[in-house]
Amino acid sequence: MANDSREPELMQKIVSLCKRRGFVFQSSEIYGGLKSAYDYGPMGIELKRNLMNEWWTFMVHSREDVVGLESSIVMHPSVWKSSGHLANFKDPLVDCLVCQERFRADKAPKLAEGAPAPLTFSDKGRAKLGEEKVKQLLEAAGTSGAQLKRDGLTIHGLVAGDRGYVCPNCGSPLLSKEKDFSGMFRTSLGPVDPILGLVTAVKEGALAGKSDKELRELAEEALSPSAVYLRPETAQGMFVQFMNVQQSQSMKVPFGIAQMGKSFRNEITVEHFIFRSCEFEQMEMEFFCFPGEGPKYLEYWKEQRLLWWKGLGLKPEKLRFRQHGEDELAHYSDGCFDVEYEFPWGWDELEGIASRTDYDLKAHSTGSGKKLDYFDAEATDPATGKQGYRFVPHVVEPAAGATRGVLAVLCDAYDEELDESGQVARTVLRLHPRLAPYKVAILPLVKKDDALVERARQVTSEFLSAGIAAKYDEQHTIGKRYARHDEIGTPYCLTIDAQTLEDETITIRYRDDKRQERIRVSEAVTVVQNALRTGRL
Amino acid sequence: MANDSREPELMQKIVSLCKRRGFVFQSSEIYGGLKSAYDYGPMGIELKRNLMNEWWTFMVHSREDVVGLESSIVMHPSVWKSSGHLANFKDPLVDCLVCQERFRADKAPKLAEGAPAPLTFSDKGRAKLGEEKVKQLLEAAGTSGAQLKRDGLTIHGLVAGDRGYVCPNCGSPLLSKEKDFSGMFRTSLGPVDPILGLVTAVKEGALAGKSDKELRELAEEALSPSAVYLRPETAQGMFVQFMNVQQSQSMKVPFGIAQMGKSFRNEITVEHFIFRSCEFEQMEMEFFCFPGEGPKYLEYWKEQRLLWWKGLGLKPEKLRFRQHGEDELAHYSDGCFDVEYEFPWGWDELEGIASRTDYDLKAHSTGSGKKLDYFDAEATDPATGKQGYRFVPHVVEPAAGATRGVLAVLCDAYDEELDESGQVARTVLRLHPRLAPYKVAILPLVKKDDALVERARQVTSEFLSAGIAAKYDEQHTIGKRYARHDEIGTPYCLTIDAQTLEDETITIRYRDDKRQERIRVSEAVTVVQNALRTGRL
Repeated sequence: MANDSREPELMQKIVSLCKRRGFVFQSSEIYGGLKSAYDYGPMGIELKRNLMNEWWTFMVHSREDVVGLESSIVMHPSVWKSSGHLANFKDPLVDCLVCQERFRADKAPKLAEGAPAPLTFSDKGRAKLGEEKVKQLLEAAGTSGAQLKRDGLTIHGLVAGDRGYVCPNCGSPLLSKEKDFSGMFRTSLGPVDPILGLVTAVKEGALAGKSDKELRELAEEALSPSAVYLRPETAQGMFVQFMNVQQSQSMKVPFGIAQMGKSFRNEITVEHFIFRSCEFEQMEMEFFCFPGEGPKYLEYWKEQRLLWWKGLGLKPEKLRFRQHGEDELAHYSDGCFDVEYEFPWGWDELEGIASRTDYDLKAHSTGSGKKLDYFDAEATDPATGKQGYRFVPHVVEPAAGATRGVLAVLCDAYDEELDESGQVARTVLRLHPRLAPYKVAILPLVKKDDALVERARQVTSEFLSAGIAAKYDEQHTIGKRYARHDEIGTPYCLTIDAQTLEDETITIRYRDDKRQERIRVSEAVTVVQNALRTGRL
Repeated sequence: MANDSREPELMQKIVSLCKRRGFVFQSSEIYGGLKSAYDYGPMGIELKRNLMNEWWTFMVHSREDVVGLESSIVMHPSVWKSSGHLANFKDPLVDCLVCQERFRADKAPKLAEGAPAPLTFSDKGRAKLGEEKVKQLLEAAGTSGAQLKRDGLTIHGLVAGDRGYVCPNCGSPLLSKEKDFSGMFRTSLGPVDPILGLVTAVKEGALAGKSDKELRELAEEALSPSAVYLRPETAQGMFVQFMNVQQSQSMKVPFGIAQMGKSFRNEITVEHFIFRSCEFEQMEMEFFCFPGEGPKYLEYWKEQRLLWWKGLGLKPEKLRFRQHGEDELAHYSDGCFDVEYEFPWGWDELEGIASRTDYDLKAHSTGSGKKLDYFDAEATDPATGKQGYRFVPHVVEPAAGATRGVLAVLCDAYDEELDESGQVARTVLRLHPRLAPYKVAILPLVKKDDALVERARQVTSEFLSAGIAAKYDEQHTIGKRYARHDEIGTPYCLTIDAQTLEDETITIRYRDDKRQERIRVSEAVTVVQNALRTGRL
C-alpha cells in the first residue's frame, strides 16, 4: 500500500504520513492486508468524525427542512429489485488471456477493429513470457504466429478484434468472453443454510447434464431463498422510509432526509488509497420537492454543497463542477453535476448532485404496492386547477463521499516547507481547526518538573471542560513535539514553563507560521474558540 | 413488530412510540419488513448519536490513556481463523418436527431422559394439528400412538429422549438432528465469482456420488477462495492494529484502544425489538496492561463503566453486575462481569467486562507470524530481575452494546402520568438532557403573527449558534406541541408571545413537572447549558 509505485509521489508521501501518524492503516495489515478496505487510526477517526459532524451540522442541525435517518446496511432484497440495482448494478468483466489481468470491458482502452494492437510489458522477462503465451494462443486457435515480432518490451503483429477494446494492462486483444459481475456483496440471512440448498440440488440430480448457463441459474436459485445484499448506497433507505419520516415528523414538502454511513461495492479496481475501496462511507441527502422544482433545487444544492466543501478550507481553485453529459445521465434524471477535487492524480469526483425526478419513489411504490406520495391541502392541483394536490415528490440528491472527503482534506492540507537548500524542513497538515484531531496541545517544557506537569494537566482539563479536544503531551523535546503536532495538524501548541507558574502566561505557537507569542493562560481558551468559529488561526 | 404479542405491554407501548415519533422503524417496512434489522428515524438517530458521543467523550476524549480506532467491517478471513470465530462461533440448530420451530439446542428447555414431555399449543386448531403430526411421526417410526392423550391444548404421553431437551415452542421431544449454524455472515470479495466455482465443481463431477458431509465440504471449498466475513464484533480490529496504534501514538502500557461501530451476527432468535438483532452497534474498548494486572483493571473498569451508565440517567436500582460462573468463562478468561439492566422482560445484558489475559494478542501473533508485544525499558523483567521488560500485554475489555444502550435509555425514560381516573394523561420521555434529540423547542404562540415567528426564529438561531440542538416548532396548538415534545423528551419548551416583543421575556416550560415560569430570553441559553452540564432540569 504505502509503496504503490503507480501513485504520484505526493500520494505516496501522504499515505506514508497517514500510517506514521495514525490516520489510516491498511486493513488487517499483519495478515498481508486486505486491499479493498482501510482502518482509521486514532488521528484518522477524529478527522473523519469531525468532517462528518460538520456535514451533519450543516445539512441537518442548522436547517428546519432536513431531518436525519440511519437505515440498516442489510435491507430487504426487494429494495434492490425495485431500485434496479439487482438488474443493473453489474459490470461486464473480461480476463486478458495473455497477462491474466481482469478488467471492466466498458472501461478498457478502445481500439477499432483491425487496428494494430501492440502488446507492451514492464520488463524483458514478462515480454518473453507474453510472446510465448501469444504464440500458444494463436496455435490453439489454429493460426500461425508468423507475423509476430518482438521489439524489446513490445510485441507487434496482432490487431484489435470486433469488440473494440484491448487489455488495459498489456494491450492484448486476446481476451476471454465478457461475464457479468455484480457490484453488490451478497450474503445469506437467517438460519437457512445456502450450502445445504446447493447440496440438496446436487443430490436431487438437478444440476446434472446442464449447460454452464443453466447450472449457474440453478445454483443461483438454490442460494436465493436467504440471499440479502450489503447496500451499495445509503440513498435507498431514505426512499423506503419516506412515509415514516414524513408522517412521524409532520414534514412539509419541500424537505430532505439525510443519512451518513457505510456502503459496500465489490469494486474490481481499488485505487488511489482510500479514494476507491470496497467498504466506504457516504453522506447522502434526498431532498423531496414539488414536481417541476427539481432543476431549481439542483441549482440551490449545487451552490450549498460547494459552499460546504469550501468551508472545510479546501482551496477554491481545486474545486469545480463537472456537468454530466446526455450519455452519462440515467434515463430518469434531468440533470447531474459532480463536485470534483483536483487530487494528486488529477480531477476526480467528491460528490454527485443529481435531479432524479420521481423515479425512486415511484419505483418503490410499484415494487412494494404501497403509496409513497404527499398531499398538500393548500396547493393547487395543476391538473384540475382545484385546491388540494396529491403528488409523488421529485428528488434532488446531493451524495457526497465521506471517505473521499477525508482524502481530499488530507491532500489539500499536506504541505512541505523547504529550507534554503531545497530540503524538506517541515511537513505540516494545514487542517481547518474544526477538522483537526486535536485543537490544541499542552506541553510542559520539561516532564521532570512536577509543578509544570501539574499545571499543564490543569490547563488540559480546562480545555476538555470547554468541550475542546486537547492533548497533554510530555514526550520528547519541545522541537520534536512541535514537529509531531505539525504533522497531525494541531493548530496551537501551548508551552508551560517556569514563568507560567510565576505570572500565569504561556507560550502559544501557531502551526501555520510557527509564530510564537506569550499570552495569559486565561486568553488561550478564547483564542482556540475563535479559531474554531472563524476557521482562521 | 409493533404488535408482537409475546412482548410485555410496556415494550409494545415503547415500540409504538418509537414508530409514531420517529425513533425506530422496522427496516424495509414497506416490503413487509426485515425482522433482523431496524432503522433509526430522525429522533432515534439523534438519540443514538448523543449516546455514542457520550461514550466517546468519556472513554477517549476525557482520558490521556485511551485512543480511538475505526477498523473495517470486512477484515481478512485469517483474522477470524486466529480469533477462533471460524471454528467456534456457531450454534447447534434443531428443527421441531411437530411445530417446525427452529431453535438453538444449547438454549432449549432442559428435560431429563424419560421424563414426561407434554406438548402445549396456543389454540385448539394448532393442538389438533399437533396431535395429528405426532401420530404420523410415531407411525413413521413404527411406534403406536396409543399412549397419546389430548387434554384441551395439551398432548400427554410422550417422554424426553436422551438429548435432554425439548422444543422451546411446543415442548415436543420429536426433533431433527443438530446442525452447526455459523453466527458469521459470509460474503465474497473481489472479482472471483463463487457460483462459478461451484458450477465448475459440478461439471468436473467432483460432487457426484458423495455423502452429505463430503458434498458440504466440497461446496464450502468451492466457495472459499473469495470468502470474507462481516465482523461479529469490533474488538478484533483493536488486536490486529495493536502495533500500528501503539507505535504511531507512542502509547505506553497501560493504554486502551476504543472503537464504535456496526457488527453483524446471524442470530437465530431475534427478540425484544432492537435488543437482539442481526445488525447492531457496539462500543468496545481493549485496555492493554502488564501481565498480572488484569484483575486490578477489571475492577477499575467495572466501576468506571457503571458510573457511565448511571451518568446517562438510568435508574441505579435497574442496574446490576452479574458475575460469570466458571462454566460460562472462556478458557483463557480470568474473570467476566455483565452490566445488566432490568428491561420490561427482565434483567438482561447491556455490557460485558472481561479480563481476557494475553489470549487475543498471542492468537493473532501466532496466526500472522508477526510480533505483537511491548517493550518497557524502565520496567523490571520478573523472569530475569533485570531492567527492560518485553511482554505480550494482557487485556481487559469493556464491551457495551450501543443499540442496547438506546433501548435501555428509552425504557428507563418512558413514563406515563395518570389522571384521577387512572387514564394516561401524559406520556413523557424523561431523557437526560444530553441524550435528548432536541434540548429545547421554541414555539411562537401563534404562527400567523409574523413578528412572533420572526422572534422565535431568532431565538432558535441563538441556540444553534451556541451549538445547542433547538427545534423551531409552529405546527398545531401549544398543548399539542407540548405533548409532542414530552414524547420525544425535549427538556424545555420556550413560548414566544406578544409580551415577549414588549419586555423580552418568554415562558419556559419544564418537561418533567410541567412547571412554567416567565424568564428573560437572555437567561434561556444559560438554563439549557446548565442542564446539559449537570443533567438536572
